[in-house]
Amino acid sequence: MSKKDKQFVEEITPMEVDFAQWYTDVIKKTDLVDYSPVKGFMVIKHYGYAIWENIQKYMDNRFKETGHKNCYFPLLIPESLLKKEAEHVEGFAPEVAWVTHGGDEELAERLCVRPTSETIICEMYSRWLKSYRDLPFLYNQWCSVVRWEKSTRPFLRTSEFLWQEGHTLHETYEDAQEETLQMLNIYKETAEELLAMPVVVGQKSEKEKFAGAYATYTMEALMHDGKALQAGTSHNLGQHFTTAFDITYSDRNGDLKHPYHTSWGVSTRLIGGIIMVHGDNRGLVLPPGVAPVQVVIVPIASHKEGVLDKANELFSQLKGKFRVELDDRDNYSPGWKFNEWEMKGVPIRIEIGPKDIEKNQAMLFRRDELEKEAVSLDNLEEAVDNLLRDINNNLLYKAKKMRDEKTYIVKSFDEMKEVMDIKPGFVKAMWCGERECEEHIKAETGVTIRCIPFEQEDLGHTCAFCGKEAKHMVYLAKAY
Amino acid sequence: MSKKDKQFVEEITPMEVDFAQWYTDVIKKTDLVDYSPVKGFMVIKHYGYAIWENIQKYMDNRFKETGHKNCYFPLLIPESLLKKEAEHVEGFAPEVAWVTHGGDEELAERLCVRPTSETIICEMYSRWLKSYRDLPFLYNQWCSVVRWEKSTRPFLRTSEFLWQEGHTLHETYEDAQEETLQMLNIYKETAEELLAMPVVVGQKSEKEKFAGAYATYTMEALMHDGKALQAGTSHNLGQHFTTAFDITYSDRNGDLKHPYHTSWGVSTRLIGGIIMVHGDNRGLVLPPGVAPVQVVIVPIASHKEGVLDKANELFSQLKGKFRVELDDRDNYSPGWKFNEWEMKGVPIRIEIGPKDIEKNQAMLFRRDELEKEAVSLDNLEEAVDNLLRDINNNLLYKAKKMRDEKTYIVKSFDEMKEVMDIKPGFVKAMWCGERECEEHIKAETGVTIRCIPFEQEDLGHTCAFCGKEAKHMVYLAKAY
Repeated sequence: MSKKDKQFVEEITPMEVDFAQWYTDVIKKTDLVDYSPVKGFMVIKHYGYAIWENIQKYMDNRFKETGHKNCYFPLLIPESLLKKEAEHVEGFAPEVAWVTHGGDEELAERLCVRPTSETIICEMYSRWLKSYRDLPFLYNQWCSVVRWEKSTRPFLRTSEFLWQEGHTLHETYEDAQEETLQMLNIYKETAEELLAMPVVVGQKSEKEKFAGAYATYTMEALMHDGKALQAGTSHNLGQHFTTAFDITYSDRNGDLKHPYHTSWGVSTRLIGGIIMVHGDNRGLVLPPGVAPVQVVIVPIASHKEGVLDKANELFSQLKGKFRVELDDRDNYSPGWKFNEWEMKGVPIRIEIGPKDIEKNQAMLFRRDELEKEAVSLDNLEEAVDNLLRDINNNLLYKAKKMRDEKTYIVKSFDEMKEVMDIKPGFVKAMWCGERECEEHIKAETGVTIRCIPFEQEDLGHTCAFCGKEAKHMVYLAKAY
Repeated sequence: MSKKDKQFVEEITPMEVDFAQWYTDVIKKTDLVDYSPVKGFMVIKHYGYAIWENIQKYMDNRFKETGHKNCYFPLLIPESLLKKEAEHVEGFAPEVAWVTHGGDEELAERLCVRPTSETIICEMYSRWLKSYRDLPFLYNQWCSVVRWEKSTRPFLRTSEFLWQEGHTLHETYEDAQEETLQMLNIYKETAEELLAMPVVVGQKSEKEKFAGAYATYTMEALMHDGKALQAGTSHNLGQHFTTAFDITYSDRNGDLKHPYHTSWGVSTRLIGGIIMVHGDNRGLVLPPGVAPVQVVIVPIASHKEGVLDKANELFSQLKGKFRVELDDRDNYSPGWKFNEWEMKGVPIRIEIGPKDIEKNQAMLFRRDELEKEAVSLDNLEEAVDNLLRDINNNLLYKAKKMRDEKTYIVKSFDEMKEVMDIKPGFVKAMWCGERECEEHIKAETGVTIRCIPFEQEDLGHTCAFCGKEAKHMVYLAKAY
């Protein structure tokens, strides 16, 4: 490594030394994000935003395939609407931003910047819905929301974030439940297929469910540091909001009924998940499905005749098929470029130099395994295509392995405390189902019940924490 | 038309009777939009939002082809930042919404909901820009903005709207000017090619330019009622903001310089333009490029054997190639469906009934000309493809014709007043270039100078309004 290279590769704090600092170093040095002048608000830079665009594109297709359409509802919600559903206002009022003035005039009623849109959407649904023939309502919106947070970290918890929120109405409880689980499943498939991020899916406890929900379902991922990330939630809202907002329709017998209601959302938080599940001490490792640049071509000895021409030829060949970039900057050495693109997590680097050209080959470097191999230029496209697939599978495999290694079965409170002290992760344990017991666990250890997984295992008959009769097997963890 | 049909087809006020009411009827009855509980804020329903998605998709591609990348900047801007550029704050402060409380706490500094993002973006650019090697900065964002409006109308003027805002930095004035005009040209091509909406392009007068701009360029379209719509603007901001925000870089000689700056935006206002340029007394007429449904298939006598099967077959055949819907609802008559889809502006309706099947044909109805012709099922795809193209060309042709018929050359103030009284439209006239003269025209007539068009014509040597020496030929109109 030349002096110049060393100068460039600013140190990323190793994750074993200080995980939080590692995260901050990575997001700042890879130009994903920046802090803004307003505390707790982030600027998503183009490299980070491009990841979000790739997530959006995939998910929006999945939503549309399942019959959902996008709408746009207003940013500002009157205080009186927010207050209509009692649990909801209690949950959200403490963390909303209030608009009190429009231009020079004080408003007669305060407006909150949407923290989520159930209330304004229900208000509109109450005007739109007439007959059972109109059902189901299957709408989604992509937007930003604001929740005033005291302690923030880019992508993971910020006072503003980007997300999608789906809001649907159905004739029956069963239809709403089916929708809730269908969307959770789409989230799970997005996480695992697109982001190579394995998730545990299940139901939230009463304490942890969404303010105003009948039942909340979640997907939970495990990060490198053993903390869990709630990566997406889907709520069966029952008739709580549809009653509070007096949404009615005439059913097949002509009777007035309240419909059943769901909402579901994922956010830019997913990007935080990608970073903390796949990243390493060199920086980002991006899954090919969302990497803004899937392949970077770096010419070697580019001043030598024919090298730049060949690099350009390969670029033209791959363009349109992959998200590819040619790094032909003449003020940086190949070594400097290698370091930069590795830090930025580009899945594949193609190196092409005079010797490669002689042999009709290129070197393919894979970021996930830091390995290089020569590939014939005759099969370059196929080789890249296969390697991207392989990288995706490998990332999912490695993430599952990491998670499994950090998942423990515990039989007692003490055992959990010990495990969490030594090497934190997911804990599987039997639980009584009581709120007091859950609150006690959290107060004592900071550990929370992440979910009651759909895949139950029988780990015994008594609650590991209070000794009462066990009701469920649950996943616990410290969480972001 | 059966009784049921008549019942359904609620009257749309004819545009000749009351254009404003016609507009309101059309947007409400076609489910484009709804009013929200907050005055001046609109809900964009799925049919309206799908138009916006089609516009976004086209434009986003054009932006990316020309090297622009998307980012996301915070929704809330500190008051102190808004105040940094003097003209800018004067222009926007009276119409911003102020956030004064986060949760239960009063904020130390008020935050405005972005009315546009020059200030927050310049603040970030000042941190990011170091060297001439970093230039140009070519970033865009898709978001919503809030401007507190006293008098609003959906899509045309609302207190919140969706838009894109591009913000770029360049080494030289010439580069910035080239960018400004390049983006205006992309806007013009979007308007004419995608929306079939002819526009006049040119420069805004000093009075009408963007608050803080060095020069503002605009595209202006003429609506059915003879009023102009400013449909998109591109600003050369010179060094106004880059000086105020102290954005500097070291140039090729190592000297510190302020870069040159542009911004450019179009909004959901374009949808208002589409409605008022192409619509008629039956409702919407949507250009094929943005129509959420390009082709609707309506089976005739669908209870007869084979009809629904055939309709489904056609649907499968066209799906994936066009945005197509099969209207197989059994509780509406074909006549009712015809009316509904015509009102919703769907470019092509395919009717298929027993007699058509016998003859191996379908009837193709085109919304723009309200004409029907039989087409062999052997060439259906090709016929639909050709007809969509033809409809697009025809809409542009008709809109140009309408505009030309409503464009007048005037030589005096009196002549303009007379013309504007009888049948309003675009007025072309010579103008002295003086602000007082411009203000006098507006105060007397409500007519404004829409732009100094790039295509100048020599209509004389004296200002039509004050008699002084003429400087430019300008377009004038009453405007939305």
